[in-house]
Amino acid sequence: MIRRSFGLATDLYELTMAAAYFERGMNHRATFELFVRSLPPHRSYLITAGLDQALDYLSSLRLTPDEIEYLRSHPSFKHVSREFFDYLTEMRFSGDVWAMPEGTAAFGMEPILRIEAPLIEAQIVETYLISIITFETLIASKAARVVTAAQGRGVIDFGTRRAHGPEAGLLAARAAYIGGCIGTSNAEAGHLFGIQTLGTLAHSFIMSFDHEEEAFRAFLAAFPDSATLLVDTYDTIRAVEILCKSFAGSGLNIAAIRLDSGDLAELSKRARAMLDAAGLTETNIFASGDLNEYKISALIAGGAAIDGFGVGTELTTSYDSPALSGVYKLASEELEGRIIPRMKLSEGKATYPCAKQVWRHSSEGGVYEYDTIALAGESEPKGAHQETRPLLDAVMKAGRIMRPASNQLLMARERAREELRRLPRRLLALDCAENYPVRFSPALEKERAELSMKLRSDLDSK
Amino acid sequence: MIRRSFGLATDLYELTMAAAYFERGMNHRATFELFVRSLPPHRSYLITAGLDQALDYLSSLRLTPDEIEYLRSHPSFKHVSREFFDYLTEMRFSGDVWAMPEGTAAFGMEPILRIEAPLIEAQIVETYLISIITFETLIASKAARVVTAAQGRGVIDFGTRRAHGPEAGLLAARAAYIGGCIGTSNAEAGHLFGIQTLGTLAHSFIMSFDHEEEAFRAFLAAFPDSATLLVDTYDTIRAVEILCKSFAGSGLNIAAIRLDSGDLAELSKRARAMLDAAGLTETNIFASGDLNEYKISALIAGGAAIDGFGVGTELTTSYDSPALSGVYKLASEELEGRIIPRMKLSEGKATYPCAKQVWRHSSEGGVYEYDTIALAGESEPKGAHQETRPLLDAVMKAGRIMRPASNQLLMARERAREELRRLPRRLLALDCAENYPVRFSPALEKERAELSMKLRSDLDSK
Repeated sequence: MIRRSFGLATDLYELTMAAAYFERGMNHRATFELFVRSLPPHRSYLITAGLDQALDYLSSLRLTPDEIEYLRSHPSFKHVSREFFDYLTEMRFSGDVWAMPEGTAAFGMEPILRIEAPLIEAQIVETYLISIITFETLIASKAARVVTAAQGRGVIDFGTRRAHGPEAGLLAARAAYIGGCIGTSNAEAGHLFGIQTLGTLAHSFIMSFDHEEEAFRAFLAAFPDSATLLVDTYDTIRAVEILCKSFAGSGLNIAAIRLDSGDLAELSKRARAMLDAAGLTETNIFASGDLNEYKISALIAGGAAIDGFGVGTELTTSYDSPALSGVYKLASEELEGRIIPRMKLSEGKATYPCAKQVWRHSSEGGVYEYDTIALAGESEPKGAHQETRPLLDAVMKAGRIMRPASNQLLMARERAREELRRLPRRLLALDCAENYPVRFSPALEKERAELSMKLRSDLDSK
Repeated sequence: MIRRSFGLATDLYELTMAAAYFERGMNHRATFELFVRSLPPHRSYLITAGLDQALDYLSSLRLTPDEIEYLRSHPSFKHVSREFFDYLTEMRFSGDVWAMPEGTAAFGMEPILRIEAPLIEAQIVETYLISIITFETLIASKAARVVTAAQGRGVIDFGTRRAHGPEAGLLAARAAYIGGCIGTSNAEAGHLFGIQTLGTLAHSFIMSFDHEEEAFRAFLAAFPDSATLLVDTYDTIRAVEILCKSFAGSGLNIAAIRLDSGDLAELSKRARAMLDAAGLTETNIFASGDLNEYKISALIAGGAAIDGFGVGTELTTSYDSPALSGVYKLASEELEGRIIPRMKLSEGKATYPCAKQVWRHSSEGGVYEYDTIALAGESEPKGAHQETRPLLDAVMKAGRIMRPASNQLLMARERAREELRRLPRRLLALDCAENYPVRFSPALEKERAELSMKLRSDLDSK
């Protein structure tokens, strides 16, 4: 098993930069913001997730003696002073963090998380923070699409086996739950996060018996009130016939059957009719097998008699858009008591300077109208809207987590549901090509224009 | 931080099936095989990886008292006997494993790993094994494409921040190294796996100084012989001018510059000419910024003066094909001393029965000609080929790992390089639409036909 302390779970360049800052005596406070530049294809909103893991990381970050020794003996570090390694040995994250709570709808360019910390600490945590926040946000966002497509039918995360390693499977189960799934197949996610876990059975179980009926009977004996029986190992309709003939009226409760291959719409209708005719009206029909939001939508449109969906690969890897362009950018620095705004001019990768807050404006009826990205210090933007609220909360102060201890995950899931309810309906369409309106406050635009002009004139003066 | 023991890192249905087997007294030996049904789009071969993590998992698998308690109190398990939980408490993996060594070229339907173990153990380990083997194989295979496109120029994994969580970043660094990358930015991968780690610096470092030149000078002070300087924060050509003017002939060694945005081909040519004119002929040019195998191929075709590439998102998420259809299927069972072949008939998901071996046949010159999937017990297939060798080795016996302790990773990387050298050249084309020939032995086809007929006649007799 891989034993990890997470002290080196970062890019080497964070540590080379840290060394260069240290040697120069630079460790003033700096503000960095984590955001997604633009939404990936087929996404019209994000649902944030991963903050809980991010805060756990920040509050427990330290480098072990082994890890320090690894760096000391790294060829790149041979000219770095001993004092730097002493500093790293003692380093803990001591900064402040503002963030959108998990389950918040977010859009391109909006800071999801803002760090204010001594420069070296803020730099070293970049890689881990981007990875954990963008991955969980990626999956929560995909889950929201799938759940929306299912129109109230339950969606269960089945993707652990196709996740990018075991940890990704566990984190995806958590994020999918925030995005609206009703549960997961991942037993560890049940244990660690309290998420409802559900399981059926596999084809190999059926194949381990000489007759399908015997397999069903063995499973029902162990799970007499919760069994979901897989019916497509040999022939779906024949398997449903066996169930109807052998178990209808037996007193055994077949909670559900699972269809996993073939024409799911057609098979579900035939199975429903057969089950009903046999009096098994309480037995649900559950479907799986390379499903995604489009296939689920088509199944429902085609009148499929399906009560719930298990979604694996497509959900857990966000198959159609498997990454977010998450970045973590320097916004300002504090030097001799003054805040110096910072920004990047690179082609296509330019940023906005200064610490920011995001304000969300609702119209009458509570529907979200647009967001304003403003300077963190600005007062509430005025307008004709019914309600305006800031999205970034203080979540960590001087390295200590500030939040209630329990129910974080359920609250995040509830928040996501409420966000989806309040987003403009057109944004929930699977093929929405429209951008939700995100504006920048006049004060922020002014800061940017001034700094941009200054940077260009500095360049020209050379 | 998430504390994990991996005992529950599995799908709940593995555990419900285990309970049903246990209650029925079924725990005979069974053989399962892990394979990828078909290669994903844009892949004409796989490079296997992840075996090391798989064996570590198998040899250390156990359920903690906490995990057992989680299951005992799970509503689905309320009718399951106490004896089952006692069994789980004591359970260790005691089976045998055969596998393709890491770095082997593999194709659709070929068993990458075969487990022979008591049924319950073999069932419980399914989810973790699929996840770890298919993920690392996915990334090693993508890396091989990127490295092939780079035609001898070094490729470095830069993807940790866009990986599906921190563990995925670590595992991807390892798999990318097997696939041919020369190193990674992931410091933990350097520490844990001994992979070369490389780092440059970020835009935020440049932005932390009032002048770019000052930033370069600070970095060179800490890293006087290994600095790779990022030149696109404000304006690439101006930054190269600064370098030439300020540092040429200074005695400081600028190991490389990094281009990260803009027209990389054009900028690299201009930068090369400027560096050369200033006498900085030893300074390499390194490029990054949303690269993949196609863009690298186009850059080289366009005469870009680039010496190495950093590849992130596209590599670490296998962006264009972010999952493999990895499955783990029951192949046979041993009952009362007899081996009973097992297979699945489901539409589009049918399998081949029995434990298998894969043979690889080479023509003169050592080029691979085709593979034969045969029954495990068959002798070497005969033919007109120069060389035939079996691909699956015994790697674990009765739960104990059988392998030399050191150099596994380097050997895997060397093996992958040799495999790519021996594959038919046409298979290495980025747009190869051809399948490498994989045949089934006549004896295996006969087993399958007989079992298929028997299963269908069993169905018909009902």
